Amino acid sequence: MPLDTKGNARIMQIGFIGLGKMGGNMVRRLSKGGHECHIFSIDPAERAALATETGAVPADSVAALVAGMATPRTLWLMVPAGKITQSVIDELAPLLAAGDCIIDGGNSYFKDSVTRARALAPQGIAFVDCGTSGGLFGLERGYSLMIGGEDAAVSRNAPIFACLAPGIATAPRTPARDGGPIAPGEEGWLHCGPPGSGHYVKMIHNGIEYGMMQAFAEGFALFASAGSDAVPEEYRYKLDLAAIAEVWRRGSVVSSWLIDLGADALAEDPKLETFSPRVADSGEGRWTVIAGVEQGVSVPVIASSLFERFNSHDDTAVEARMLSALRAKFGGHKGVPPAS
Amino acid sequence: MPLDTKGNARIMQIGFIGLGKMGGNMVRRLSKGGHECHIFSIDPAERAALATETGAVPADSVAALVAGMATPRTLWLMVPAGKITQSVIDELAPLLAAGDCIIDGGNSYFKDSVTRARALAPQGIAFVDCGTSGGLFGLERGYSLMIGGEDAAVSRNAPIFACLAPGIATAPRTPARDGGPIAPGEEGWLHCGPPGSGHYVKMIHNGIEYGMMQAFAEGFALFASAGSDAVPEEYRYKLDLAAIAEVWRRGSVVSSWLIDLGADALAEDPKLETFSPRVADSGEGRWTVIAGVEQGVSVPVIASSLFERFNSHDDTAVEARMLSALRAKFGGHKGVPPAS
Amino acid sequence: MPLDTKGNARIMQIGFIGLGKMGGNMVRRLSKGGHECHIFSIDPAERAALATETGAVPADSVAALVAGMATPRTLWLMVPAGKITQSVIDELAPLLAAGDCIIDGGNSYFKDSVTRARALAPQGIAFVDCGTSGGLFGLERGYSLMIGGEDAAVSRNAPIFACLAPGIATAPRTPARDGGPIAPGEEGWLHCGPPGSGHYVKMIHNGIEYGMMQAFAEGFALFASAGSDAVPEEYRYKLDLAAIAEVWRRGSVVSSWLIDLGADALAEDPKLETFSPRVADSGEGRWTVIAGVEQGVSVPVIASSLFERFNSHDDTAVEARMLSALRAKFGGHKGVPPAS
Amino acid sequence: MPLDTKGNARIMQIGFIGLGKMGGNMVRRLSKGGHECHIFSIDPAERAALATETGAVPADSVAALVAGMATPRTLWLMVPAGKITQSVIDELAPLLAAGDCIIDGGNSYFKDSVTRARALAPQGIAFVDCGTSGGLFGLERGYSLMIGGEDAAVSRNAPIFACLAPGIATAPRTPARDGGPIAPGEEGWLHCGPPGSGHYVKMIHNGIEYGMMQAFAEGFALFASAGSDAVPEEYRYKLDLAAIAEVWRRGSVVSSWLIDLGADALAEDPKLETFSPRVADSGEGRWTVIAGVEQGVSVPVIASSLFERFNSHDDTAVEARMLSALRAKFGGHKGVPPAS
Repeated sequence: MPLDTKGNARIMQIGFIGLGKMGGNMVRRLSKGGHECHIFSIDPAERAALATETGAVPADSVAALVAGMATPRTLWLMVPAGKITQSVIDELAPLLAAGDCIIDGGNSYFKDSVTRARALAPQGIAFVDCGTSGGLFGLERGYSLMIGGEDAAVSRNAPIFACLAPGIATAPRTPARDGGPIAPGEEGWLHCGPPGSGHYVKMIHNGIEYGMMQAFAEGFALFASAGSDAVPEEYRYKLDLAAIAEVWRRGSVVSSWLIDLGADALAEDPKLETFSPRVADSGEGRWTVIAGVEQGVSVPVIASSLFERFNSHDDTAVEARMLSALRAKFGGHKGVPPAS
Repeated sequence: MPLDTKGNARIMQIGFIGLGKMGGNMVRRLSKGGHECHIFSIDPAERAALATETGAVPADSVAALVAGMATPRTLWLMVPAGKITQSVIDELAPLLAAGDCIIDGGNSYFKDSVTRARALAPQGIAFVDCGTSGGLFGLERGYSLMIGGEDAAVSRNAPIFACLAPGIATAPRTPARDGGPIAPGEEGWLHCGPPGSGHYVKMIHNGIEYGMMQAFAEGFALFASAGSDAVPEEYRYKLDLAAIAEVWRRGSVVSSWLIDLGADALAEDPKLETFSPRVADSGEGRWTVIAGVEQGVSVPVIASSLFERFNSHDDTAVEARMLSALRAKFGGHKGVPPAS
Repeated sequence: MPLDTKGNARIMQIGFIGLGKMGGNMVRRLSKGGHECHIFSIDPAERAALATETGAVPADSVAALVAGMATPRTLWLMVPAGKITQSVIDELAPLLAAGDCIIDGGNSYFKDSVTRARALAPQGIAFVDCGTSGGLFGLERGYSLMIGGEDAAVSRNAPIFACLAPGIATAPRTPARDGGPIAPGEEGWLHCGPPGSGHYVKMIHNGIEYGMMQAFAEGFALFASAGSDAVPEEYRYKLDLAAIAEVWRRGSVVSSWLIDLGADALAEDPKLETFSPRVADSGEGRWTVIAGVEQGVSVPVIASSLFERFNSHDDTAVEARMLSALRAKFGGHKGVPPAS
Repeated sequence: MPLDTKGNARIMQIGFIGLGKMGGNMVRRLSKGGHECHIFSIDPAERAALATETGAVPADSVAALVAGMATPRTLWLMVPAGKITQSVIDELAPLLAAGDCIIDGGNSYFKDSVTRARALAPQGIAFVDCGTSGGLFGLERGYSLMIGGEDAAVSRNAPIFACLAPGIATAPRTPARDGGPIAPGEEGWLHCGPPGSGHYVKMIHNGIEYGMMQAFAEGFALFASAGSDAVPEEYRYKLDLAAIAEVWRRGSVVSSWLIDLGADALAEDPKLETFSPRVADSGEGRWTVIAGVEQGVSVPVIASSLFERFNSHDDTAVEARMLSALRAKFGGHKGVPPAS
């Protein structure tokens, strides 16, 4: 059986559906790794360009994609979570045979992944949920993969996961593991447990990500505020936010990939004026807070992070108006001494 | 010694400095109670009108006010907390004699009140800090008074406090106290402890007030949102916010003076459109959070309430822009599938 | 048609299932109001005693209860929300006829109430969800009722709602409504909207209640802490918590039923030592946070309140241990200077 | 002038006071860098051992340390922030001459640093505040240094800062800076601004660190909870926390030094049972929240992180007892149906 370009894994054939920024880069990384990618997206130009660039085999339709592959097939979905994921699965399922495998690499809700795995099981189709972190940089940096599914399906696709993951060499080993056998996770991909567990772990990952981002955002908001005349005199410092982000990249406790990215953004735009004051929230932040509530686990930081995003795109301001209404009622208009 | 109009307290002479919405109403209530008010404010028309209305004795200056009173004098300050309070005290102190008393009824920082009491003590001037709650409605409803100071000074001014306070009859007695002797606080005023303790208790009162207001604001924001098409279908209810506030006024666990006020505001303006989406914060909310931090006591609700007010008047949105910058860096622009 | 004891409403016949602390008191209040109550609970002694006390008609079974009533019947359920509610409805439904009505007065999830209304509709059975606030004191104070359901069913049962509610006379009218016609809600019960809306409004009510309770809890924790030697000297005041609660009952901005209850608890047990440091959370607090998340509305205070309850019964302390683990890793053991 | 072992900076003489885990390692790193360290700590054995190990010159007293150095001297303090820092400065100041410099490398409050700089200025002594991040690993990894002070003093000591800092080669350059001149901060040390600004930036750094740690702690608490029977069935996954930490080290958005440390702690103790459930808080977390309050900047995540630490060592549980008291009052004891 042929090995991949690293010489340590079987060459696999894989079908890829969804060739956006994430999916496209994953096909690039897999193709570089020697794997045979069959690709489909709804945009013919997109798939043609990617095929030309990577040598992947383009297909005109989902059916053609499936028909062009040898069994047992692995189909990787990299499409927006939610209705689209479901509709692609609905289209795929009748085309597949027992022994085939669908991997959902998007940010689907783990409860949906459990449902999907159960629905496909009677047909003998394995469903694997794979939380995929790394964003645009995954092409070079590799993707951190959190995988849920039955053992057999995960094992069979191990070469794919190993190729997409960064590999153990991309970071020094954890001291407590150094010298020991390679433990699960050290290559950058992890079989977390049964179906749903991959997306569950990825969901919490994103919840933590929300908290870390908000922590940085609060800190830099303090720095920006310190440069204004609106604060008490003892807090007035004209700080170079970009330089502070830079100094934290090396040696500090907060050193992280996020501060690397923050340093880059601030180097480009020191006042962040080109970035939107409205912050979208994806499903995973919301689901993590719901998980906290349903598990009975206190998650104040993740919840606060989510709520600050809600605040950033609240146009009605009913909450604030209600506060104003109450203040007006007990204290009269603005000129009143602040006794209440 | 003459009794007040309730027949149960000595008639007092009191000097009042600051005749705004709070101070003016307090003079009205004291005058109705039979007390002899000497009044001063920087606005000659304001003091003349109030004198005409209430029979209070107006003075042209702080010095004239003091000169027109018999010793031992009590001077009540009802001026904006902060620099103005200090400057009035600085003006007053040299004019007073040992045995006189200054009562600060405003929302001063309790640490400042301790400093002031210490600074005036060598002169034999008593300093009493009196947290005053009740707002515009205090004239009819009475004021809840939280008082810090030496025993002698507080005792001597008890008739004033009793007149300003609502009195025990304004609410049914607490069951556990019913039939027993009247306990401290039941008349609506309380000698909390040494100087500073009155303003300390009032500070925490306002912190709690922030939390209660924010709790209501969040609830009504949910109701308003339920009326929009932006929420999942199962949450869509066209609710009558004013009617909900009304139904809670009687019998519910959240029945409170604040919901009474909220019901009034909503009856006037069911969509709250006339109320500002920017909510001012007074010092006391801020100081309560600092107290939590310095006492090592967890105050997440009071802190969140304060931060939501900060959010309501944040124009720079640096925090949100920083979040957007980080998202843009790892995930690319909006069209990217939400994997991160 | 006979009128109730207030002379302003039809006498109704009503079946009551669930005679615990809430249900029992409601039967007492309805019986006093002249309504004919048929009652059932699983505890024969309980229903017998209540029948003796109130003149209500006891039944040996749900079937007997239904058989003993005239059509169209109204059955009020006051049983623990969740599985029990569903099982009672499952038992009831086959016994009922078109035109009958089931009122769920418990704290059911509004989404379940929508489902139940839909499931019963084809049989012609009306389902009404009635959020009921007031707790143990409702017997005397009346209950605040938030009602969801079709117009006809709600109208037909108006006399029941009116009897259970406090009535307009129990509080002064809202100033903006004074002199006008009686608006919805002023009697203390409100038809909020279609099925589910009653429980939705009650859910939010309880979320607000959580926030208000937590605000008070934080304030009194600050007061208790101020009495200890663990705080900085300037914060040390030996405060009388019970007296403070008392003084706030009259005239203050935080005056509320909750502070009335707090004053009672503190009068009985000034250090609160007899009360558990573990606080249960009911479903409604959790559901309100989920509503915030799913509606995209920021609810930091309600969420914090819920999380503090979670904290109060967390025995594993994994969160804190993880923090300790991280600190230990970067900073060494406790003796290290706090540079990090 | 002799160069350091990297060949790119003057060899400096430096006096070091405080040889604990942080200070000792800094002397080791400076000695390795070729700098001449004169050292003092109150423990004679500690300074003797370090002198033997590093070749540093030990002194018997602060006075002897100062006397043994050539002017202009630089004295680096690495002692616990607060009273000890002040007492060392009080002892040092009379022994120093104009042109000498004191660097405070500890976690002092930036307001204190401003005061100290002002107090020493008339004597011609420069005061430099240097926030030092990196913990125990700084010896090998280098320290991230955030420096406040006058230009001349900071410039003169640049070789010291450069030696302690990690250096630009320890991380890839920020893309937006790549190819350009070396910007401030890229070497791992930054002159932030005038006196106080170094400790201000370090304070915020630690506030962010609190938020990031809490975000991870919440996530892992969710994972641990998912392994228990106490959660709804759909959340039950037996997860390998150590493996999850490991998989996030490479390629994920949350990759960071903190997750590296967390992976190490979990590899040693997968259930974290050896780590304390009580988490100390240093001054800087508290001060950051106060900064948020005083600057009027919303810092919900940093505040929540601090409050969770407070919760972890709260033995009185007054807050929770107050909640229980209120619940008991309106709802009766535990057996009551959860209607409220």
